[in-house]
Amino acid sequence: MTLAATRARTSPEETRARIIEVAEEHFRRVGYAKTAVADIAAELGMSPANIYRFFPSKSAINEAICARLLGEAQAHIAAIAGKPVPAAERLAELIISLHRLNKARLTAERRMHEMVAVAMAENWASIEVHCDCVKSTYARVIRDGVESGEFGAVDPDETGAAVFKACICLFHPMLIAQGADKDLEAEAAGLIALILRALRP
Amino acid sequence: MTLAATRARTSPEETRARIIEVAEEHFRRVGYAKTAVADIAAELGMSPANIYRFFPSKSAINEAICARLLGEAQAHIAAIAGKPVPAAERLAELIISLHRLNKARLTAERRMHEMVAVAMAENWASIEVHCDCVKSTYARVIRDGVESGEFGAVDPDETGAAVFKACICLFHPMLIAQGADKDLEAEAAGLIALILRALRP
Repeated sequence: MTLAATRARTSPEETRARIIEVAEEHFRRVGYAKTAVADIAAELGMSPANIYRFFPSKSAINEAICARLLGEAQAHIAAIAGKPVPAAERLAELIISLHRLNKARLTAERRMHEMVAVAMAENWASIEVHCDCVKSTYARVIRDGVESGEFGAVDPDETGAAVFKACICLFHPMLIAQGADKDLEAEAAGLIALILRALRP
Repeated sequence: MTLAATRARTSPEETRARIIEVAEEHFRRVGYAKTAVADIAAELGMSPANIYRFFPSKSAINEAICARLLGEAQAHIAAIAGKPVPAAERLAELIISLHRLNKARLTAERRMHEMVAVAMAENWASIEVHCDCVKSTYARVIRDGVESGEFGAVDPDETGAAVFKACICLFHPMLIAQGADKDLEAEAAGLIALILRALRP
């Protein structure tokens, strides 16, 4: 089978996915700043021009990687929010899960942290969409708790936004990195206790 | 009167204070990175070697400026904590005042923000002392509220630490800068409402 024949069987979606996969591996291993589009192209055995047919810039590749990671996180929290357990339990699990997810992904590897920092600087819109998704997931669970009488009569949207702000220290990549020497799980427990006290009827 | 005679009347404390004053003015106007110790010396009509008699490095001058700013903030919050008003009112005033103080000092001037970022990177110990002071001021007011029955029976130290964490988004220079386009006062009001709900008996 010739190379041309192999390529003919690769759909544009598959090529896009392969570019993202190889780029992410490079960003994680070599670093975002030190990876050139040419390096990614070389690894894939294609020309940089071909990569640019799919992504107009290195920043666009990074945005696609971030969108995938954020999409995974959003699916994860939607599953927690839909569990048939008390609202307080779901809210606590949402907070601790988001913290662990961000901590594992964003600080276990310094390179990943660099990627996210670039994404936060360059593609702020996609990060804001993600933050709004987290806030509305909190609001959904709080609304359930208010309707069932488990929580007091708070405004779900306003309270969801306040809970999001209160938990920034557990989610923000830079703050997680700064607090790497601290027991963030204990701090999360203290914050969750404070938030659940606030939601009492 | 000769220059020597003028100098003879300047005490070491006065010289130290003048160095800090001129350095702060330079850092604010030119920026921390672009200010050399020689520039500060030239403005003061003294040799760099003389400056190094008082401060071993530019970083040490910055540390002294930060210590002064933090000391002022600490005196300010101690005065609020001691007011003869309900604990809830004092706690709310502490949070909003600290937010306004940080916002005014740290973002009104981009240069000041740079200084603080350097201080946070280089002199983390003095920043930690300041954070501990803020936490213990919260704990003091919460203890008053618990003892008077205004607040529920929470642990004042643990709750003070949780309140501090919950309000990071209002105090952290980088987060204030990132949220410059947002209505942080409204966000502060939402957080204060959440915290005071948590402290209800």
